[in-house]
Amino acid sequence: MSGQSLAADLTLTGGDKGVVVVVAAIALAALAVGYVLLKEVLAAGTGTTKMQDIAKAVQEGAAAYLKRQRNTLLVFGSAVFLLLFLLPADSGGERIGRSLFFLVGAVFSFTIGYLGMWLATQANLRVASAANDEGGREKATRIAFRTGGAVGMATVGLGLFGAAIVVLVYTGGAPKVLEGFGFGAALIAMFMRVGGGIFTKAADVGADLVGKVEQNIPEDDPRNAATIADNVGDNVGDCAGMAADLFESYAVTLVAALILGSTAFGVQGLLFPLIVPALGVITAMLGVYITKARAGESGLTAINRSFYISALFSAVLCTAAAFIYLPNSFAELTQAPTTTGEPGSPALIAAIAVIIGIVLAGVILWLTGYYTGTDHKPVKEVGKTSLTGAATVVLSGISVGFESAVYTAIVIGAAVYGAFLLSGSIIVSLFAIALAGCGLLTTVGVIVAMDTFGPVSDNAQGIAEMSGDVTPEGAQILTELDAVGNTTKAITKGIAIATAVLAATALFGSYQTAIVEALGKAGESFKTEDFIVFSPDVLFGILIGAAVVFMFSGLAINAVTRAAGAIVFEVRRQFREIPGIMEGTGKPEYGKVVDICTRDSLRELATPGLLAVLAPIAVGFGLGVGPLAGYLGGAIAAGTLMAVFLANSGGAWDNAKKLVEDGHHGGKGSEAHAATVIGDTVGDPFKDTAGPAINPLIKVMNLVSLLIAPAIVTFSVGPDASTGLRVTIAAVAVVLIVVAVVVSKRRGTAIADTPAETVSNGV
Amino acid sequence: MSGQSLAADLTLTGGDKGVVVVVAAIALAALAVGYVLLKEVLAAGTGTTKMQDIAKAVQEGAAAYLKRQRNTLLVFGSAVFLLLFLLPADSGGERIGRSLFFLVGAVFSFTIGYLGMWLATQANLRVASAANDEGGREKATRIAFRTGGAVGMATVGLGLFGAAIVVLVYTGGAPKVLEGFGFGAALIAMFMRVGGGIFTKAADVGADLVGKVEQNIPEDDPRNAATIADNVGDNVGDCAGMAADLFESYAVTLVAALILGSTAFGVQGLLFPLIVPALGVITAMLGVYITKARAGESGLTAINRSFYISALFSAVLCTAAAFIYLPNSFAELTQAPTTTGEPGSPALIAAIAVIIGIVLAGVILWLTGYYTGTDHKPVKEVGKTSLTGAATVVLSGISVGFESAVYTAIVIGAAVYGAFLLSGSIIVSLFAIALAGCGLLTTVGVIVAMDTFGPVSDNAQGIAEMSGDVTPEGAQILTELDAVGNTTKAITKGIAIATAVLAATALFGSYQTAIVEALGKAGESFKTEDFIVFSPDVLFGILIGAAVVFMFSGLAINAVTRAAGAIVFEVRRQFREIPGIMEGTGKPEYGKVVDICTRDSLRELATPGLLAVLAPIAVGFGLGVGPLAGYLGGAIAAGTLMAVFLANSGGAWDNAKKLVEDGHHGGKGSEAHAATVIGDTVGDPFKDTAGPAINPLIKVMNLVSLLIAPAIVTFSVGPDASTGLRVTIAAVAVVLIVVAVVVSKRRGTAIADTPAETVSNGV
Repeated sequence: MSGQSLAADLTLTGGDKGVVVVVAAIALAALAVGYVLLKEVLAAGTGTTKMQDIAKAVQEGAAAYLKRQRNTLLVFGSAVFLLLFLLPADSGGERIGRSLFFLVGAVFSFTIGYLGMWLATQANLRVASAANDEGGREKATRIAFRTGGAVGMATVGLGLFGAAIVVLVYTGGAPKVLEGFGFGAALIAMFMRVGGGIFTKAADVGADLVGKVEQNIPEDDPRNAATIADNVGDNVGDCAGMAADLFESYAVTLVAALILGSTAFGVQGLLFPLIVPALGVITAMLGVYITKARAGESGLTAINRSFYISALFSAVLCTAAAFIYLPNSFAELTQAPTTTGEPGSPALIAAIAVIIGIVLAGVILWLTGYYTGTDHKPVKEVGKTSLTGAATVVLSGISVGFESAVYTAIVIGAAVYGAFLLSGSIIVSLFAIALAGCGLLTTVGVIVAMDTFGPVSDNAQGIAEMSGDVTPEGAQILTELDAVGNTTKAITKGIAIATAVLAATALFGSYQTAIVEALGKAGESFKTEDFIVFSPDVLFGILIGAAVVFMFSGLAINAVTRAAGAIVFEVRRQFREIPGIMEGTGKPEYGKVVDICTRDSLRELATPGLLAVLAPIAVGFGLGVGPLAGYLGGAIAAGTLMAVFLANSGGAWDNAKKLVEDGHHGGKGSEAHAATVIGDTVGDPFKDTAGPAINPLIKVMNLVSLLIAPAIVTFSVGPDASTGLRVTIAAVAVVLIVVAVVVSKRRGTAIADTPAETVSNGV
Repeated sequence: MSGQSLAADLTLTGGDKGVVVVVAAIALAALAVGYVLLKEVLAAGTGTTKMQDIAKAVQEGAAAYLKRQRNTLLVFGSAVFLLLFLLPADSGGERIGRSLFFLVGAVFSFTIGYLGMWLATQANLRVASAANDEGGREKATRIAFRTGGAVGMATVGLGLFGAAIVVLVYTGGAPKVLEGFGFGAALIAMFMRVGGGIFTKAADVGADLVGKVEQNIPEDDPRNAATIADNVGDNVGDCAGMAADLFESYAVTLVAALILGSTAFGVQGLLFPLIVPALGVITAMLGVYITKARAGESGLTAINRSFYISALFSAVLCTAAAFIYLPNSFAELTQAPTTTGEPGSPALIAAIAVIIGIVLAGVILWLTGYYTGTDHKPVKEVGKTSLTGAATVVLSGISVGFESAVYTAIVIGAAVYGAFLLSGSIIVSLFAIALAGCGLLTTVGVIVAMDTFGPVSDNAQGIAEMSGDVTPEGAQILTELDAVGNTTKAITKGIAIATAVLAATALFGSYQTAIVEALGKAGESFKTEDFIVFSPDVLFGILIGAAVVFMFSGLAINAVTRAAGAIVFEVRRQFREIPGIMEGTGKPEYGKVVDICTRDSLRELATPGLLAVLAPIAVGFGLGVGPLAGYLGGAIAAGTLMAVFLANSGGAWDNAKKLVEDGHHGGKGSEAHAATVIGDTVGDPFKDTAGPAINPLIKVMNLVSLLIAPAIVTFSVGPDASTGLRVTIAAVAVVLIVVAVVVSKRRGTAIADTPAETVSNGV
């Protein structure tokens, strides 16, 4: 593919436009279905006044956080918008389009996140209320899953609609515009993941450390000043962050497919990646509507069944679409600028690629369920090690995490490799990988629905517990729903990281093209030996890429420990200073804790965020495009393993705790329980802060690299070469990273930097 | 370098031979000095009869373990010997030499390990005894450090002597022979690290879980049946495993340098890599003899001073040697088959490269000391988080580990990159990297001395504690020595992983050459595009390589948890069944616990060992030489980060515990202390089992890849190509890995697979 451009010059015929319009219509239909589901959820009963008061506090806290986060992101986004505008571009139109669609992607991403949060805060109250009704189990499950369905439909609807519009307006000629769109979506998603993740876990860990551990009061006890913050956290982290993240996965995967599609298959290659997720939208509606727990069946079984059925339908429909829409030989493609004459059948390649993606989703679902579900050996073993204390719980959870990460990473890698083998042409292979990503996307609607289920149930339990207005049966129903949520959340993370790997691998093609083009302009040719994996500079790049993933994870975990420390002090202060809290005659100041969480999480997200954007700039300008390619490879490999490790060990600890709470190994209040609580607390920032943020991290770094590649080449060779400028840019990036890290270090861990007498329990 | 052979045809003149003979003489002098130090240690007082009895039990246990391990390794080694013999070779001589020197490397590696263990078990008793004497602090420190000196001298003496002999016999014409030598050393070292690591930590964790946690008796209390096993473990893990590991680092780094040297610089390039470590041997003697704690100074300060002084001398001597021995232009090299005419000065390049290696050692020493020492912020912070419980201790230790891993990895990578930049010629660059490795080697003598210090002090404390024949002042002295040992052990691991990265990077050059040669024979030419980092198959390789590191770590940690479970049951059984243990009237059966540790650790080392050897075979034959190169890159990157992460988080937890035991945050017996004990237990398999084994793992995988590369090419292209054979080999490797993993899984975690009533405390 060396030398050929990915920016194929295509024109859409009337029929082609018709296809895009149908896709756009399906996207709008998804939004409409989402609206119907939303109405259904909102129509449900809103419970007692006490419940409503609590829900209102949570809603207000969440909205306030997102508002402040929006303001923070506005500043950061504007800076990136300007930088993006300054980057070299082939034309003014491209320059404007790229920056403009960066904003569109960012706004869409934020909107979906906001919507997910808003809807979840409306639904949790209704789920809590429904659990008290007759037939509570079915009603509560239904509301929780319909809420997820609404968010899922909005995610896929908006993602698909955006992509369809870009294709209608820019046809296949504007990969740079699409890069901007993907970058905006990924960047905002990353910040929402990190910020929300820090918020939710700081509140959760802080609440547990004082409540469960020191005061020995149950979770969600209204006497704990951090409970409202904990519930707000579930919404801004698990709902807003997750929805933005999956929207971003959707957007970036589509971007990768659309960029490669036209070069590989011509116009049909541009449109087929729209058709696949459009079919996915249809099957997702099916999946959402058929989810219904049969008698005696757990919610997870019902959800899994819907997933597998809708995945099967997707596979069948997409295969049919491939053979109907795509021809059987490359020569028959209507407009194939580079690949005409390739051996093989476009229809067959596309069909197999999409099926690979769908099967991958199924395998990840199964693997994650196995490693984090309470019904299987791994979690049971972690649970049993609680009998020998917290240390063995932590060690066995880490082992489970490592092991599951290895299998998941190899499965994802095998999917990439399988798609790659479908053609001898590298560009077609890369398109096949992107199509596998599109196959994975067909499941996103159901996946979002599954994921949202978790925090909504968790919150419903919180509201029920805090209000006291819940029957024992109702409480039991909500506990069961919550356990299901733990596993569905882990599954979502597995799927999200898989999309990251597929999209990032596919985007590598664009990276190479960008370099080839820039070299051509500078009068140089592309040298493959600059990119060979055993060149020491490329190896250094791989090492740095992997290191950044470790750094990012460490920063995110540290941020949680630090912010949680602040919460611990505040809750202890309130216990000490406000009379009668423990007796129930005094009321804690919930709002103060929410404020601290909001302030700290927004402050803490800056360092990891800057690292993600600046590290590729430092490597690229400092070491060159070869090491930068190595950097991306190292980041993808380490990122995949780390993300799954963190998500699954966290999930396993959480459910091991649930297992003990269900009466195994001594039950609640036993030494074994205390050991699993420690494991769960360790897992909190693993699974809900660091782990899920790695997925957008990988994509942000890939897109940054893609966007800066031409500038690196321009400053490295040819007439505009300037070592001074190159080194200066790299140095500035390094200095900014160092400053950000030092600033965050100097904050210290709040715990460590407070005099011991303030720190020590004192209760 | 494509197409050129690394097997340069060189002849040694009389003067050249003289240089080698001098090097060999220095190596023998090192052995002689080691013998003198040994005599001095053995001449020290051997304490009370009770002490001697305990020491004897430890000596016997350690010897019995190593004897059984030797038998196990004989079986495994013979299988590898045969496989190696079957691999394609250019000539019968090469085939025989390669296999023969594999055995030599293996035997040397084992011998050094055995010697380290034997000497340590002789010394610990004498250190314990000396602590009771007048001027005990100086005497005890001196014996402990002299013991290390003896092992250090033996390590460098034997390593250097072996390499000198190979050069004398084979001149520069036998890289394959050297590969065999390095492979034998690395393979045995890996097994000794893994086996010894499992033994030591199973005993340690098992002893702590029952003794400290359940029975509330101090560490090394003679009533605990696992105490002797715990002390045996220190010797077979920390002494035998570490000594073999550092010998292997020495051997493999020299191998890499010798292979590249003749191609880059001719005869002088072959001899200079011998001169550098020979100078290092001289400065190491200096370092060992000048180590003496001044009044009021900690042992660590004294050790650090010796290190820096001897490093400085090494730098000066090596620079002088470079300018005396090497010319100032490539044209002046006496015999330079490929690089004559390169720009640059061989003397300058070599001098800078060696200095880079020495500086790298110093930076790692400082970084590791900062992150794991009790005097600095990170460990203090981990200590303080103990006030908010075990979960925050674990989280903050993990953050410290991640952070230090990132900085260490980047420093190591920067050293590689710096050496790489020294020349425009790739072969000279690779040689420079290997020379940086040789620079690092000049510090190995002192490093081994520092490292051995740790377990010897630890054991001395154990013997003193168990015998009861120690004065309070003596006990305090031994505690201080032990704390210094924690940090020196972490430093050794950092240095060891740095040598791994440098050696592995340098060996990449040989890997490429092997492929070029094999392709040439098959009538094909080398294509750089098969190795570019963004080819999806290479990326898949990177992912698998990183995954194997995670898998290996998980398996090692799991093995410890499992074996520790067996110890817990046995110790509990003895408490239950043997009357009067707690009262001191009954005597525990120490031997039984030693037996269980021996049996379990030898059984458990099979799976990670097979994984290390078979995974590159599966990837190479299954996916090809390009993905295998990616695999090595991924393994190096992930391995470096993981090894440092595991070593430093473990070191930080251990010292945070020591900090609390020294009276901070509530001191011994407080809640904070319990929290740090949990952190320390989590860290045990991190820092002493999984972490240190990654260093030989990386080298074993690199050498396996190097050895099989010609066979992969032969079966892939040209007249002897056979997809069937290739796939069969890969499939057999995969099946063997799966079987090994399943077998180890089926053993379950001993804890989880025992009925709850047996598991639960019951005391």
